[in-house]
Amino acid sequence: MSENPELAALVAACHWIGQKGWCPATGGNMSVRLDEDRCLISESGKDKGSLHQDDFLRVNIADNHVPSGRTPSAETGLHTLLYRRFASVGAVLHTHSVNATVLSRVEKSDALVLEGYEMQKSLQGQHTHLDRVAIPIFANDQDIPALAARVAAYADTQALRYGFLVRGHGLYCWGDDVAQARRHLEGLEFLFQCELQRRLLEAK
Amino acid sequence: MSENPELAALVAACHWIGQKGWCPATGGNMSVRLDEDRCLISESGKDKGSLHQDDFLRVNIADNHVPSGRTPSAETGLHTLLYRRFASVGAVLHTHSVNATVLSRVEKSDALVLEGYEMQKSLQGQHTHLDRVAIPIFANDQDIPALAARVAAYADTQALRYGFLVRGHGLYCWGDDVAQARRHLEGLEFLFQCELQRRLLEAK
Amino acid sequence: MSENPELAALVAACHWIGQKGWCPATGGNMSVRLDEDRCLISESGKDKGSLHQDDFLRVNIADNHVPSGRTPSAETGLHTLLYRRFASVGAVLHTHSVNATVLSRVEKSDALVLEGYEMQKSLQGQHTHLDRVAIPIFANDQDIPALAARVAAYADTQALRYGFLVRGHGLYCWGDDVAQARRHLEGLEFLFQCELQRRLLEAK
Amino acid sequence: MSENPELAALVAACHWIGQKGWCPATGGNMSVRLDEDRCLISESGKDKGSLHQDDFLRVNIADNHVPSGRTPSAETGLHTLLYRRFASVGAVLHTHSVNATVLSRVEKSDALVLEGYEMQKSLQGQHTHLDRVAIPIFANDQDIPALAARVAAYADTQALRYGFLVRGHGLYCWGDDVAQARRHLEGLEFLFQCELQRRLLEAK
Repeated sequence: MSENPELAALVAACHWIGQKGWCPATGGNMSVRLDEDRCLISESGKDKGSLHQDDFLRVNIADNHVPSGRTPSAETGLHTLLYRRFASVGAVLHTHSVNATVLSRVEKSDALVLEGYEMQKSLQGQHTHLDRVAIPIFANDQDIPALAARVAAYADTQALRYGFLVRGHGLYCWGDDVAQARRHLEGLEFLFQCELQRRLLEAK
Repeated sequence: MSENPELAALVAACHWIGQKGWCPATGGNMSVRLDEDRCLISESGKDKGSLHQDDFLRVNIADNHVPSGRTPSAETGLHTLLYRRFASVGAVLHTHSVNATVLSRVEKSDALVLEGYEMQKSLQGQHTHLDRVAIPIFANDQDIPALAARVAAYADTQALRYGFLVRGHGLYCWGDDVAQARRHLEGLEFLFQCELQRRLLEAK
Repeated sequence: MSENPELAALVAACHWIGQKGWCPATGGNMSVRLDEDRCLISESGKDKGSLHQDDFLRVNIADNHVPSGRTPSAETGLHTLLYRRFASVGAVLHTHSVNATVLSRVEKSDALVLEGYEMQKSLQGQHTHLDRVAIPIFANDQDIPALAARVAAYADTQALRYGFLVRGHGLYCWGDDVAQARRHLEGLEFLFQCELQRRLLEAK
Repeated sequence: MSENPELAALVAACHWIGQKGWCPATGGNMSVRLDEDRCLISESGKDKGSLHQDDFLRVNIADNHVPSGRTPSAETGLHTLLYRRFASVGAVLHTHSVNATVLSRVEKSDALVLEGYEMQKSLQGQHTHLDRVAIPIFANDQDIPALAARVAAYADTQALRYGFLVRGHGLYCWGDDVAQARRHLEGLEFLFQCELQRRLLEAK
């Protein structure tokens, strides 16, 4: 596994995420696509800031099966949904930041709308601060297949790009490769912090 | 003492707590159970971020006696209360974070109620964000035996799990071992920060 | 290029800016004057916290031409405007902090006015907290020549010192050399954070 | 000078203060008493986070005279006032944190009153959270002798302990030695952050 540069990039991203404090208390999970049929996903219950390459398990994208028999993250089904749906997705990061958790609760509608920020351009395909970027918010659910079905139903009718929030839980975001997923995460977290501060100041 | 892996884990946790800024100005105190009758607790007045193994003193759980005659933390009696009451408690962390201090004052009732957060699952035995986790808040008291008696009286009638707050003072939390106590601390501090930000935004 | 002490100082400033989190997601751009006619500016799309000296491109101040043919920052025209207008400008830093982004949106007038802060004296030529320092705010624009023309028009009629904000976008600041530009950045970011907190507390 | 352990402790405290971000943009100044008649104070215009022992100048406590002819901090007169007034003062730290700056402006009365916080006990001689600790706030003044005269007049009639704030400017605090001054600084900054958050939450 050590020759996989994307896995090495993912491990480095995990360490950076740990330093940012975006995955406290062994929360979160991270994955990278191996090929059309398989991805690697972080093992359950590990501290994300000190993951190694062998803390990632091979999972079948079609059915979440883990050939090795080890226990992958409980939320594996949300990662594989993204790999199944979008052939371009190469890496998925699921984090638990304070800002994502709080904004996803305070915003009572079903999307967090970002507009007027230059940083929106950190998201692939966004070219101006004048556009609206809507990050969907799904109700949290301990039943991951049910949550995945709701995300899939959303994607049937609307564009699902960059990421989505799970209310009171955290952010899922992704990219064509680890570098892009990481830039999307960094851009979205910046935008969340701005939006939280803006709402405090404008007493919305 | 150097062969005790739990003490080594506690020293590492103290350094991490120091980096987080959760024990400024030599505040806080930390302990680990040795056996049914004795625990090790941090010496009074030391900077928690740079503790060594020999900064911990052996204390009798039954009567707070320190055979070596050195001065343990002034709040030793709250640690030993937890070890006496709960045979499963293996480590106790007492920290002074800004968020714990402020929330414990701003919340005027006798408990901080956490609900709707996925991170509640970082607490042993919590399996859904739908449950209510109530962290009791006790009035601060310079008379530690009196404060310990109030905590004991509470535990006589209600479940006391994970931790409690002392108003304007800080958090006590614990676990079966250092790793679990540390995960509880990290989870609770995350939840406190979320709750503080949520209240600011929702102007509760 | 390695003998240029100002470029070395700029690279060090970029690393410091990266650590501060003021240029997330490859945003921002930085430059230093070489002489009357040319400056060095950071290449497009690089992470500012890990720039090297060879990530800077030579640009003609008169016409933004890049002899090497590599792609400079999209906002090169704002840097060269400052070098053309002000012979004393030796370095320009363009950053994307949360505080600059949020304050520039929340303040609806065309300037952020700072007064009553001792830290105003970190800005060259400011000698008392009693003076008013007005940092202009320009509307954001994806058309950089148009934005540069508006900044130039402003400078035709009013003093333009230390820096300006672009709404929802970030800060441009500068100095006679890298050290002064960096001090201006640090002073302004401190003032922005104070002003943001002050407004929250005074519910302006 | 290298054998002075208090100067070594002060240099270490300066590096720690720099990491905390409490002296941005070369602000602040620090000193330690040598004996009844002389102290060492940081040279003007240096970054406090990277000070060395030879960045400190010998100053006569009686008249602010610097035998070496180098330029000490502009605010030397406030340090020497404290050494003249209080024989027990061994070290003085003057910092510029965001919290001290903002609270000293938002609090319109002539003192910031701290009560109900366990952390008050980090201040020498404080034994309970039930006491009131009043940190005086003086109006800022570019005329340091005038400001020093107002501080001296205050000390003629009221107890002046631990520290004072200068409005919109920062904190002066001190202790019997560097370790105590540092503990006072850490305790006060913690209390300022708590008080700022508490006021935001209680919308005072």
